[in-house]
Amino acid sequence: MSFEVRHSDLAARIGKIETMHGAFETPVFIPVIHPVKQIVDTKFLEKLGFKIVITNAYTTLKYYGTEACERGIHDIINYNGVVMTDSGGYQVLRYGSVEVNPQTMAAFQKDISSDIAVPLDKPTGYGLSYELAKEYVQQTLNNARETLDTIHEAREEKIESQVDDNCVDTIWVGPIQGAEHSGLVKYSAESLDTLGFKIMALGSPVELMEAYEFALLAQMIAATKRAIPTKPIHLFGAGHPLTISLIVALGCDMFDSASYVLYAKEDRYIHANGTSKLRDLSYFPCQCPTCLSYTVKELLDLDKEKRTAEVANHNLYMLQAEVSIVKQTIVDGRLWEYVMQKAHAHPKVMEALELLKNFEFLEYGTPLFKRRALFMFDPLDQYRPEAKRFRRMVSNFRSPKYKRKRLVLYPELDIHPFYSSTTFVNLTKKFPDAQICTYSPFLGIIPVEISDIFPAAHNLIPRKTLTNSQAKDYPTFIDSLNRFLIENSFEEVLIVEDHFILEVIEKITTQKPNFKVLRLQE
Amino acid sequence: MSFEVRHSDLAARIGKIETMHGAFETPVFIPVIHPVKQIVDTKFLEKLGFKIVITNAYTTLKYYGTEACERGIHDIINYNGVVMTDSGGYQVLRYGSVEVNPQTMAAFQKDISSDIAVPLDKPTGYGLSYELAKEYVQQTLNNARETLDTIHEAREEKIESQVDDNCVDTIWVGPIQGAEHSGLVKYSAESLDTLGFKIMALGSPVELMEAYEFALLAQMIAATKRAIPTKPIHLFGAGHPLTISLIVALGCDMFDSASYVLYAKEDRYIHANGTSKLRDLSYFPCQCPTCLSYTVKELLDLDKEKRTAEVANHNLYMLQAEVSIVKQTIVDGRLWEYVMQKAHAHPKVMEALELLKNFEFLEYGTPLFKRRALFMFDPLDQYRPEAKRFRRMVSNFRSPKYKRKRLVLYPELDIHPFYSSTTFVNLTKKFPDAQICTYSPFLGIIPVEISDIFPAAHNLIPRKTLTNSQAKDYPTFIDSLNRFLIENSFEEVLIVEDHFILEVIEKITTQKPNFKVLRLQE
Repeated sequence: MSFEVRHSDLAARIGKIETMHGAFETPVFIPVIHPVKQIVDTKFLEKLGFKIVITNAYTTLKYYGTEACERGIHDIINYNGVVMTDSGGYQVLRYGSVEVNPQTMAAFQKDISSDIAVPLDKPTGYGLSYELAKEYVQQTLNNARETLDTIHEAREEKIESQVDDNCVDTIWVGPIQGAEHSGLVKYSAESLDTLGFKIMALGSPVELMEAYEFALLAQMIAATKRAIPTKPIHLFGAGHPLTISLIVALGCDMFDSASYVLYAKEDRYIHANGTSKLRDLSYFPCQCPTCLSYTVKELLDLDKEKRTAEVANHNLYMLQAEVSIVKQTIVDGRLWEYVMQKAHAHPKVMEALELLKNFEFLEYGTPLFKRRALFMFDPLDQYRPEAKRFRRMVSNFRSPKYKRKRLVLYPELDIHPFYSSTTFVNLTKKFPDAQICTYSPFLGIIPVEISDIFPAAHNLIPRKTLTNSQAKDYPTFIDSLNRFLIENSFEEVLIVEDHFILEVIEKITTQKPNFKVLRLQE
Repeated sequence: MSFEVRHSDLAARIGKIETMHGAFETPVFIPVIHPVKQIVDTKFLEKLGFKIVITNAYTTLKYYGTEACERGIHDIINYNGVVMTDSGGYQVLRYGSVEVNPQTMAAFQKDISSDIAVPLDKPTGYGLSYELAKEYVQQTLNNARETLDTIHEAREEKIESQVDDNCVDTIWVGPIQGAEHSGLVKYSAESLDTLGFKIMALGSPVELMEAYEFALLAQMIAATKRAIPTKPIHLFGAGHPLTISLIVALGCDMFDSASYVLYAKEDRYIHANGTSKLRDLSYFPCQCPTCLSYTVKELLDLDKEKRTAEVANHNLYMLQAEVSIVKQTIVDGRLWEYVMQKAHAHPKVMEALELLKNFEFLEYGTPLFKRRALFMFDPLDQYRPEAKRFRRMVSNFRSPKYKRKRLVLYPELDIHPFYSSTTFVNLTKKFPDAQICTYSPFLGIIPVEISDIFPAAHNLIPRKTLTNSQAKDYPTFIDSLNRFLIENSFEEVLIVEDHFILEVIEKITTQKPNFKVLRLQE
């Protein structure tokens, strides 16, 4: 299986995965299709540009039996694109167990020509004790092993019987369990990786999402991503419009959900910031073909079945739009900004963002240089990968010896790079032998020598944020100045009267040089 | 003319205006139509639900002359909805002057059956000295007076000649000028109001917007709104997707723009957070019918004329969607949240939001009670009208005499209202005679007796924001506690060890009661 990455930002990747029935691009939202009573026509999904759907192999087996093997899953659901199948894990979660074993489900998924298949797993859900969750993880691992054994045996038989089988095979997905127990998630992910699965799928987020426990969800994805940095990651049951940008930013390449139809059945209409009951709408905040063909009242007046189908169509358009927005944002290098903006739709999403501070893996996919300026608004922005990188670069910067007598620290201006400002020219005239630096609460110390390096000259911050920042909120800044002073041992530091830097200086723990405060006019 | 308001939030209003050619709903985006070489078919605009367009009467006069009076403007532009006409002010701004006088333009606009017409004005643009701007304002006022005189004379002649004229007449719009000189804007608005204009139109924002001077724009609108609190306000030349929610929130009921086609001519594609060059797009972040019928490449490969038309169509869909989103947000009572979220799209928009603090007029339209919880994230949210109102209510609250021995201040919990929490029950057991209050950095002091009043029990704040808030950022809180202490003269105040309240106490300027700090366990 190939996974070709064309763009990335944070841990998000625009990539391409090849299967027996064609390729699809990631990040991708995969609509759940019911193999028997599907509400939205799969042909409509093709028209909408969905190149991959997911359906339930267990339900297919129960309903169609061996007929499914003869017809194949693509014929059953009348869809020519990529078909992923789930194995019954969802049923296990809901009803405790299913009446099949991993071997049966493995053989069946292979026989119905599933393009991407999942071993029968035992989802941990949310709220299990560590011990019980561990048992579930272990059982899922055993199932996964048995699945691979079944597949390998079948393959060997085929080879012995000299059947020509050059086409790509079913791609098997490693089902990661462990839920809120990060240690188990890590163990689960690493074990499946070792077994050789090409795609990893993270289970059990639905209940976390229903409880708006987005922070736990983020931790679960982070544990996975740290264990599996390169292989594609699928997230089961993630169809909430609020969280798509976040889960993609954290590195989920694929995610499936039936939300579009489940919401529709409850007359819930998806919009950019969540869902609304249809009857609470006075206007459609949308210009999709469905919303353009009805007024709210007309849609409400349809009979239940037709209404459900139409709302489901709209919901699909919205989910598809959100994924397109996120993809374009990845190309633009503005995913951090978008995730931050989106988090303002709900305080519970915002709570999850606090974690991004410590998600070092967000840095790997973030380009070293971006064409667009960074927009920074909130203290959290000091932790974006570009800022962390810049501070690291500065921590390696050494001021030339002849400049170490004096450091001049000047607050950031609107003019970038700083050396092109008249302020800089005046400063060099006044202090010809000094090391001159500007500073930004978000980026730290900016030596003029590297003030044109990304993102020092490529960022925009609201004036008010720059002038009102409080040292307390910017621990990375204090650290950055501390290190800079240690590494360059200046004799004297000139600062201008600026409340931010004055506050910072109080917090400097290193052996302080002689600080001298100047008025801005001086 | 009637202006019927059905919903409001901040200074935004969902209203309805009746004209000779039907009614339209506000807030409304009014596409600019070229009377001679229009790129997007006006029939398409009708299909898209645009019930009002604006076109240029001066250009119409130049090109069609008296033919226009015979045919009428609706026939000229082939459109059956409401037609508003501008008078040539734009041409004055661009070319310095026009070859007609106010009387001619007044008679002409009446004769072509314009539904909403504008006297020939002299736009101040942006960057004029106060003196020159004042001259322009005065000249515009004179023109407006002459326009009304012309119309009144015509009406009297008609009455004398016994012509039956029961239908609604052309609605004349008062052209406010003054730009960044708020005093002139106020003078201009008040004078036009006195003259009896039914709709006010604020001129000259285009150059401010092009310079991203959104703060100046907001001040200009505020000056208008303070002078004209009830009549509908039109804003000329406002078609930037970033600012629609802001200008509506500030009280602009109507706004027109040719941006959809001007951007299209430069291959600029409007999206929720701004515009992008078509060639910079890899995906359409949109599901409008236009975007669904092309790939980016296909659209780029069209010939220039066809491409311009298609991009203009998409741009119209996007602007229409943004207006629908804003309208639904008004109905939901979430306009403040939406404006805040939108401001995260660009630091320059965020800069403008700082002004909202002092825009007292945002309170008039904000409902006293909302069905949905307030979401609060940022110190700026302490200035939202609901919070201001609540603090005012608390400033009138008097603790019963027997409770004035002791005030217990407890940090806000997730449980609303506070009296339904076990913490409260325990506190009353321990301090049966005490006045018990919670506090929130955003709302101030919350006496338990009114802890179920909106929005005390109807708000959601990220946990981190609650626990990390700094007293410095919440001057309204310090003021609220100060007043509460003055009005109720407690002998003793018990607080729990909470860094926020400890910081606040340091800043209390009133004669301090005896503060006693408890551990949370006590």
